[in-house]
Amino acid sequence: MFILHDNTESGNAYKARLLLSQLGLPFKTIQYDVTKGETRTAEYLSNINENGRIPVVQFEDGRCLAESNAILYYFAVGTDLFPEDKWHQAEVMKWLFFEQYSHEPFVAVAKYILTMLPEDSPRRAEIPSLHEKGYIALQIMENRLAAHDYLVEDRYSIADIALFAYTHKAAMGGFDLSTFPAILAWFRRIEQTPGFVAMYPEDWRKS
Amino acid sequence: MFILHDNTESGNAYKARLLLSQLGLPFKTIQYDVTKGETRTAEYLSNINENGRIPVVQFEDGRCLAESNAILYYFAVGTDLFPEDKWHQAEVMKWLFFEQYSHEPFVAVAKYILTMLPEDSPRRAEIPSLHEKGYIALQIMENRLAAHDYLVEDRYSIADIALFAYTHKAAMGGFDLSTFPAILAWFRRIEQTPGFVAMYPEDWRKS
Repeated sequence: MFILHDNTESGNAYKARLLLSQLGLPFKTIQYDVTKGETRTAEYLSNINENGRIPVVQFEDGRCLAESNAILYYFAVGTDLFPEDKWHQAEVMKWLFFEQYSHEPFVAVAKYILTMLPEDSPRRAEIPSLHEKGYIALQIMENRLAAHDYLVEDRYSIADIALFAYTHKAAMGGFDLSTFPAILAWFRRIEQTPGFVAMYPEDWRKS
Repeated sequence: MFILHDNTESGNAYKARLLLSQLGLPFKTIQYDVTKGETRTAEYLSNINENGRIPVVQFEDGRCLAESNAILYYFAVGTDLFPEDKWHQAEVMKWLFFEQYSHEPFVAVAKYILTMLPEDSPRRAEIPSLHEKGYIALQIMENRLAAHDYLVEDRYSIADIALFAYTHKAAMGGFDLSTFPAILAWFRRIEQTPGFVAMYPEDWRKS
């Protein structure tokens, strides 16, 4: 059975939980508190991920795969969650790299600062800039989803999983999604896909 | 013929130039000065990339593909520059996402600040933090390359192209590579791959 090196608060880790659940692949999780440096111990850096991050999938033979979107690729290739033709595959890739470069560093970091750091953290000064850049990413998603049910080819794919993870918790980072109706409707569609599991089990359908 | 929406100073754009050259695919380039906002015009945002970035590959039918590493994937799939088996494909993906999240935001941004902004730019204050994080990424590469000729499977792939682009110009961002001998030896190997073209043609083999 796979081990998912995991953190409940991480949207990046949730991507892996959601995909593995939807593919019906059983896995165990080991939880880490990143605010306590638990992914930066010498043992973790040596044995799990020298980049000191979660999520990591560890296989029974000990091999480890880091980077949330590489994990999505590995498990989705050959399933309905990754397109067959090269052009649509490239469009999935476009959204995965967009997510890691133009979305997560703003939408996820705002959530981290507002929910994981003390209220008097000096990092709160970053919030206006994070919101400015995060709203640009959200508007790009809204433009796409206003005309299409999903991000690529009107079919649910790992592009949707990657972007759903932090977008559906953007309010925790102080983002107001009320002017993004297409994104909100897309949340509802994703929540109805087979095998869907909530990021926080207790708030199913309350996002 | 493809059009590459390009910028000579961009390592991200160079990735596409290098791959297309090595695959023997002819292309035209259109140059943009990002410091003058030329990728943020209404026309560019409407027709080329609503995220306002280069590189973008435009096909003859008008379709556009953004995100440098998605471009690498699209053209490399099915060639010797992308592995056939799923595990090594996932390892390539791990390095591509590592590059965009843990390397480029530090190594490339330091180069941008030191070479493209005025000497009195307040952004120079970011350099110590960019160096701290960039050296972590460089050490991870060094650890891999000390024991292997290339990043994945001891074969040249788009993982090497993606990481070579900004790493081999890291000195322009103030990084000292003299303590990374495996990275320097890897530079020499890449420069000898068939069809290699330099980022700046005038400095071939002087990197």
